[in-house]
Amino acid sequence: MERVESKASFGGRQEVWVHDSEVLGVPMRFGIYLPPQAAEGACPVVYFLSGLTCTEQNFITKAGAQRAAAELGLIVVAPDTSPRGEAVADDAAYDLGQGAGFYVNATQAPWAAHYRMYDYVVDELPALVEAHFPASDKRSITGHSMGGHGALVIALRNPGRYASVSAFAPIVAPTAVPWGHKALGAYLGEDRSAWAAWDACALVAQASERLPLLVDQGDADGFLAEQLQPERLREACAAAGHPLTLRMQPGYDHSYYFIASFIADHLAHAGAALG
Amino acid sequence: MERVESKASFGGRQEVWVHDSEVLGVPMRFGIYLPPQAAEGACPVVYFLSGLTCTEQNFITKAGAQRAAAELGLIVVAPDTSPRGEAVADDAAYDLGQGAGFYVNATQAPWAAHYRMYDYVVDELPALVEAHFPASDKRSITGHSMGGHGALVIALRNPGRYASVSAFAPIVAPTAVPWGHKALGAYLGEDRSAWAAWDACALVAQASERLPLLVDQGDADGFLAEQLQPERLREACAAAGHPLTLRMQPGYDHSYYFIASFIADHLAHAGAALG
Repeated sequence: MERVESKASFGGRQEVWVHDSEVLGVPMRFGIYLPPQAAEGACPVVYFLSGLTCTEQNFITKAGAQRAAAELGLIVVAPDTSPRGEAVADDAAYDLGQGAGFYVNATQAPWAAHYRMYDYVVDELPALVEAHFPASDKRSITGHSMGGHGALVIALRNPGRYASVSAFAPIVAPTAVPWGHKALGAYLGEDRSAWAAWDACALVAQASERLPLLVDQGDADGFLAEQLQPERLREACAAAGHPLTLRMQPGYDHSYYFIASFIADHLAHAGAALG
Repeated sequence: MERVESKASFGGRQEVWVHDSEVLGVPMRFGIYLPPQAAEGACPVVYFLSGLTCTEQNFITKAGAQRAAAELGLIVVAPDTSPRGEAVADDAAYDLGQGAGFYVNATQAPWAAHYRMYDYVVDELPALVEAHFPASDKRSITGHSMGGHGALVIALRNPGRYASVSAFAPIVAPTAVPWGHKALGAYLGEDRSAWAAWDACALVAQASERLPLLVDQGDADGFLAEQLQPERLREACAAAGHPLTLRMQPGYDHSYYFIASFIADHLAHAGAALG
């Protein structure tokens, strides 16, 4: 594992590391913010999963999360959104292949060889972080768009593993929208019975742990009606009795200006749960 | 004048506008953050001048200034760093020509035709902002690196025009360092007697108004020893009795992580002076 960036930021350090991922079979980069409190002892970790087309850079340069993380004493880890490189299958579209791993374990050729972002985020990355940094084993998870989908699915599939979960403009029902149809069809195959395990709305219906969900969604988001459809999550949570705080934010779009405006709320939500 | 971006941000709007600049003779873009308070009445304006290679985008996407501006009720205007386009003289180097206007009025061919960033920032842009937005005529100015030089020079040359001035890692003595030698030599000619009017250290010696200077400088900045040399400003201010707060920030480099970490302090400094 090698450190490729280290920048002073709000009294802590914003770093980028590269490591050879066993799960993904390629080198992977991730951003990690180490707050000032990490110099004194282990801090809890918030994982931020980014959206389509992003690398580890988008969140660390544009979201302004370091300020709140420094105040709250939270480590914030931002992985890349897929395996990358010449050896890795890809697609010319922005919403499939490199930059679009969808946080699933692919079962179909040519994707199955490297696209296992679920296992990477759930197991390999936290083990690495907790072994090499002053990180406790207390974790929260959040993300944006495709990464909001990832955060919700990962928390719902792993009861007890995350102290809290939240999402910005998540794809709440990939089995019902074009982005999800395309990605799940490619990565998991056209047998749709395999898709429900990767759909937050479907997972809420059978969750054994009622971890409260915090979701922010801009009402001027250009993807709202076709791809995001947060009302599906509201209905699924209502039907299951699953606690949900869904905040429709007036005037906000799908950009990092939206994330930056509310990241402090999401880190405070995580910080309260992490203690 | 045309609005090309408008994003909700911290309860206000981050916008980008393009207009035909009379002073520069080309279309120019600038970022403007309108805080929530601008919906109720005129707000004072802070001008942020960016550094080498930047457009209006770097500051508005990476500095995280919107949060503090929203709290303080400040409009923040971030212009581009030079005239641009095929009709505009350029140089292959990153530190001359397009992206490197140095906030001077050029007198030498081929630059004199368009490179008048000083007049643009001092006169044309504020007139435009104050005519078309809910902006009062109360102004402060700040900037980074080449833009820190611009902020200091512009404030020192225009007593009474700015309520406050500050800078991040400014080029305090362009007449004494390589970046300045190259840019001032090209834009103003090799007769160095013309250079002192664009050098903050030289201007401090003859300032009629003792406007306090706030400067943050990272001590891990890779440009510190060769290009920035803040000790020259400390000496010039001490000799002139000019008030200076120079904060050496341990571990910080020249990046936007540095700016983001201290922008709230600089906006608070401006906000206090603007009332």
